Amino acid sequence: MRVVIVGGVAAGMSAATRLRRLDESAEIVVLEAGDEVSFANCGLPYHVGGVIEERSALLRDADGLATRFRLDIRLRHEVTALDRAAKRVHVRAPGGDELHLDYDRLVLAEGAAATALPSDGSIPVHALRTVGDMDGLVAAVERGARTAVVAGGGYIGVEAAENLVRRGLRVVLAAQGDQVLARNLDAEMAAPVHEELRANGVELRFGAAVTGVADGAALLADGERLPADLLVDATGVAPRADLAARSGLAIGPTGGVAVDALHRTSDPDVLAAGDAVEKRDAVDGEPVLVALAGLANRHGRAVADVIAGAPEEAAPALGTAIVGVFGLAVGTLGWTERRLRAAGRPHRVLHTHPAQHAGYYPGATTLSIKLLVDAADDRVLGAQIVGRDGVDKRIDVLATAIAGGIPASALSRLELAYAPQFGSAKDPVNLLGYVAGNLADGTAKAVQWHELPGLLRDGWTLVDVRSPAEFAAGAIPGAVNLPLDELRERHGELPEGRIALHCQVGQRGWTATRLLSQLGHDVANLDGGYRTWRDGQATRHHATEAGADAA
Amino acid sequence: MRVVIVGGVAAGMSAATRLRRLDESAEIVVLEAGDEVSFANCGLPYHVGGVIEERSALLRDADGLATRFRLDIRLRHEVTALDRAAKRVHVRAPGGDELHLDYDRLVLAEGAAATALPSDGSIPVHALRTVGDMDGLVAAVERGARTAVVAGGGYIGVEAAENLVRRGLRVVLAAQGDQVLARNLDAEMAAPVHEELRANGVELRFGAAVTGVADGAALLADGERLPADLLVDATGVAPRADLAARSGLAIGPTGGVAVDALHRTSDPDVLAAGDAVEKRDAVDGEPVLVALAGLANRHGRAVADVIAGAPEEAAPALGTAIVGVFGLAVGTLGWTERRLRAAGRPHRVLHTHPAQHAGYYPGATTLSIKLLVDAADDRVLGAQIVGRDGVDKRIDVLATAIAGGIPASALSRLELAYAPQFGSAKDPVNLLGYVAGNLADGTAKAVQWHELPGLLRDGWTLVDVRSPAEFAAGAIPGAVNLPLDELRERHGELPEGRIALHCQVGQRGWTATRLLSQLGHDVANLDGGYRTWRDGQATRHHATEAGADAA
Repeated sequence: MRVVIVGGVAAGMSAATRLRRLDESAEIVVLEAGDEVSFANCGLPYHVGGVIEERSALLRDADGLATRFRLDIRLRHEVTALDRAAKRVHVRAPGGDELHLDYDRLVLAEGAAATALPSDGSIPVHALRTVGDMDGLVAAVERGARTAVVAGGGYIGVEAAENLVRRGLRVVLAAQGDQVLARNLDAEMAAPVHEELRANGVELRFGAAVTGVADGAALLADGERLPADLLVDATGVAPRADLAARSGLAIGPTGGVAVDALHRTSDPDVLAAGDAVEKRDAVDGEPVLVALAGLANRHGRAVADVIAGAPEEAAPALGTAIVGVFGLAVGTLGWTERRLRAAGRPHRVLHTHPAQHAGYYPGATTLSIKLLVDAADDRVLGAQIVGRDGVDKRIDVLATAIAGGIPASALSRLELAYAPQFGSAKDPVNLLGYVAGNLADGTAKAVQWHELPGLLRDGWTLVDVRSPAEFAAGAIPGAVNLPLDELRERHGELPEGRIALHCQVGQRGWTATRLLSQLGHDVANLDGGYRTWRDGQATRHHATEAGADAA
Repeated sequence: MRVVIVGGVAAGMSAATRLRRLDESAEIVVLEAGDEVSFANCGLPYHVGGVIEERSALLRDADGLATRFRLDIRLRHEVTALDRAAKRVHVRAPGGDELHLDYDRLVLAEGAAATALPSDGSIPVHALRTVGDMDGLVAAVERGARTAVVAGGGYIGVEAAENLVRRGLRVVLAAQGDQVLARNLDAEMAAPVHEELRANGVELRFGAAVTGVADGAALLADGERLPADLLVDATGVAPRADLAARSGLAIGPTGGVAVDALHRTSDPDVLAAGDAVEKRDAVDGEPVLVALAGLANRHGRAVADVIAGAPEEAAPALGTAIVGVFGLAVGTLGWTERRLRAAGRPHRVLHTHPAQHAGYYPGATTLSIKLLVDAADDRVLGAQIVGRDGVDKRIDVLATAIAGGIPASALSRLELAYAPQFGSAKDPVNLLGYVAGNLADGTAKAVQWHELPGLLRDGWTLVDVRSPAEFAAGAIPGAVNLPLDELRERHGELPEGRIALHCQVGQRGWTATRLLSQLGHDVANLDGGYRTWRDGQATRHHATEAGADAA
């Protein structure tokens, strides 16, 4: 059996090495258009920043892989055509020679390609997707670039911005919308990320769609020019599905190669995995593009299992991801509130701000956590966590809980490891479960920061149950201060009608909500407290600024 | 309704505050025999070590709690008798006054008490369970103690040793068996913990059962004396079940108060939670004592739900726990291999040594992971993780997977967050799933380090597939060196018969196992490789030393 694999990075090389472990007799040919196989894509920004000092640390020795796994690895070999009837690929070898290879099974693992802004070549413009991109950026920095525009505020954009700052560049990050990480974070959750970027010297420009590069500057859609010594094009990636499309394989509605749960394209002898392929979304079961290394590796390996006759269906994709932003980590999975609202999907929202470990142990810092829960069945639909420490742990626990079918309320029951330097006796994940349970069974009601203006217009009273000192240091316009510990005596001062109350981060608010509700008031907690409200205002403010800029 | 709660620390105060949130009208009385409520028990060792500088950081203000939650908190009130027929407790108040209190519901949350070694008082002897214990140790250190014996190698023992070293004391840790953390770690997994303790100056004494203190020294069972300026008695804790027993409540086989899944004792008006109470073991469903703060808090809160009429059954206890040992963390859950073997329960064992995050990102360190899997149904029965970073995350993910009913093989499918500073595209937990799957479906076979002597006696050949340089730097006696990348050409050199092979940490071993097995050899991987074997020898060696000491 000859298996030809097109693409030798994450999915392709996972397929090749697993297949060899399962089948010593197969002939395995890996055709890689680039200069490298199995390179560490996710490490590229950190070599630009000098964090990973040695370029070679990101590369794998193709000869070593070839020897260990008896692979026929051919670098700089581009597949130009696929003849499915003949089960043959046409290949352009280095130097331009054409050759063709027959296959019994073909694996498409070409990945995604960075989209490219039009440029007049006046300054270096690089994506950050390949080793060549990385080398180009390093070279530009070493030639003396002092300023950079990063176009795009997704993962690669923020990682590029951080790493260029590390190399001493002045960086402007231009994001099309009113926040960074817009696919993964809701507005209020992006606020601490904006703060962190700014605190580290990154200039943020919102409502700033970069349309190209000319005369030494990035051009914005509104006509403004942002002069710079280099531009990082982080405006997006698209699946490499041309070859598949040209050979008549089904392409999905997302533009990715369509595959079934066994990684088979519309031609059962052609399998596909990785960023070129669309996945099934864990929330709604629809096709979705998720360009993440973990899925590429897992699905590539699973392709080998299918070829070797031990097929296992792929799980739907949750899109669990994490990105470092200077001292912050941002972990996300599933859908944002924005997306749930747009889809009209009933959901509950929770915000918490717990410490990542016991508050009395040195180094305690605050996490901001948002959980999105199906209003009908208590299933977790999305999560967003921002903080300095312990983010990766909580997002992974949530991803695992979802995989295990654990509903939001039952997160309280997870028996997580506790010592004061690692967590809390009631871990932040447990607390999410307690809040979710209180909301699910009606023990407490909540309202969201963005609902507040409407509620106040409707005549609700806003009560701030923090201490007078906290209130004096900054309060929500229109709030009256009635500290939690005085509520029992003073609740008679509250007017008739509905009450929204809040504390700093939400926790005292829950206690106050329970108390006032038992005392006969119609009351809801402002979810996430003052902090979530403030973060929501901060991003809204950018939105307004961006709107003004554009006007 | 009057609810009387006996004990005001973790379980008791969780019950009290939750009950108030659910029921503003209940009268809630908390009787605490000690001076403090709701203190941070798990932080005590770290104040002894000066890590937590302020003693007050560990304490909660009883008056503040009383006000916020309208609790009748009575410190230094000891319940001397319980008259269940009359639904009345008898109490000794400070100063010796006797009083009694009628209850509608009684909650027993007295916790566990440290066992006390007999002492002649010649040196300070303290457990590390209460604020008083902590104060006693701090006082002894401040009076100039220079040397300490810590009796007991459990969590408290190793935390005490670490923190006394932090204060500059010379510390001898005396453990009864041949390793520390014997309840939670198997022999080979304890080896890196022993290394870490020794590297930080702790002298380890194995086979050293401390029987008491006399004439300024700890007395060992074999007659030896270990002179010291103070002794930390970390020999164990026992549930405080006297009051329950005296009043005729059922006591379980473990000595803890027996409760049902709704935290009810044999008297339905008397509930109980926390370290005084026995739990149901998640592995075999039998009663078990698990003295962990997380369970105490969770079950205490659940007691309030039961009283308020919203009962939810407790989940069985997995015993997920973590302890810091200088720069190491040790995370464990479920059963050890030792315990599974003693119980005759069929199981599979896996050892891995992955990096906690991408190896090419600075700061990568190696985790040692052991997974115990039910041989019949692929369920995870136990896990042990030792490492410098990322331990808490992986043990929590495993605890969550178990709660979600995810079998070991399916750990490969978890979609965990990846960026190079946080994990790997194939996370250590995913890798466990891959190995478990290969073992479950027969793709690969494994043998354990402790089986090796027997296999070699039976005529197996041991093949070391590492490089000649690795082999030269230290090898298993009897092994022949045949590097992985030469196996295809040289496998004809191998003798007939069964082969165990190994690499450094296990991974190349799996590849070699697959290769040789496809080439027609009868082969098994030495699970965990040279490293697990070496760690196993290290602890065995202590055992021999301890035996020699005792002889």
